[in-house]
Amino acid sequence: MIRILYFSRSTNALYDDQLEDILESSRRNNSALGITGILVHANGMFMQVLEGPEQPTLRTYVKILDDQRHSDCQIAYIAHTDKRIFEGWSMGAIARNDPLDFEKIIALQKQHRKAVVEPKIFIQTIREWLTILKDKHG
Amino acid sequence: MIRILYFSRSTNALYDDQLEDILESSRRNNSALGITGILVHANGMFMQVLEGPEQPTLRTYVKILDDQRHSDCQIAYIAHTDKRIFEGWSMGAIARNDPLDFEKIIALQKQHRKAVVEPKIFIQTIREWLTILKDKHG
Repeated sequence: MIRILYFSRSTNALYDDQLEDILESSRRNNSALGITGILVHANGMFMQVLEGPEQPTLRTYVKILDDQRHSDCQIAYIAHTDKRIFEGWSMGAIARNDPLDFEKIIALQKQHRKAVVEPKIFIQTIREWLTILKDKHG
Repeated sequence: MIRILYFSRSTNALYDDQLEDILESSRRNNSALGITGILVHANGMFMQVLEGPEQPTLRTYVKILDDQRHSDCQIAYIAHTDKRIFEGWSMGAIARNDPLDFEKIIALQKQHRKAVVEPKIFIQTIREWLTILKDKHG
């Protein structure tokens, strides 16, 4: 399995029902492909984690690149893994009303621009997103 | 930039002119996309390194997955990098008459099957391929 975390910029102000559309089609496709993950949308940015079998996950990412609702996709973290973080979540979602730590995300982006990327900080942040998800859905 | 090393199995006995075809079209496409790398073909296996801008390189890899001349593509190593190893090689080639160290490649594959992959061993092997390339082309 492989895990990808990417950042992108929302091309337009995205309304809640449009976000629901993205999530619905993504959940449908991901279930069939064995992909799990989370979509974070806040502050005009998307951050998404995709984790699943190598080929379907990479094919899905390349399809996502062509989605006109965002631009400037950049992978912040990509690595093989033998264990899912988002087990059971065909696509969890965190949006602007959830308690996101923006300072941490900005630090994560800065980290990403450095030549040497420290994977631990990404995994730690991703795990915090899982905690937010679980808190939301009790 | 991103660097990918994958292994795959050659679906048929591949003749030298077919290998030349693959290399020629790959060099043409890669030059346009800023991708460099090496294709190793020996013992019924392909090993290829692709390095270049993130999106074109991933798109190219996903296209390669659909090539009927090989199967069982598996990424052994994928990581961001700020420096090319194959600078100037739109696609170098090593084939069965070159002095390949098969034991090392088999060790590399076994390494890949373990949960924890040590990136250094991949980079070291990739650099050895570059040395073979340079020796061949004087």
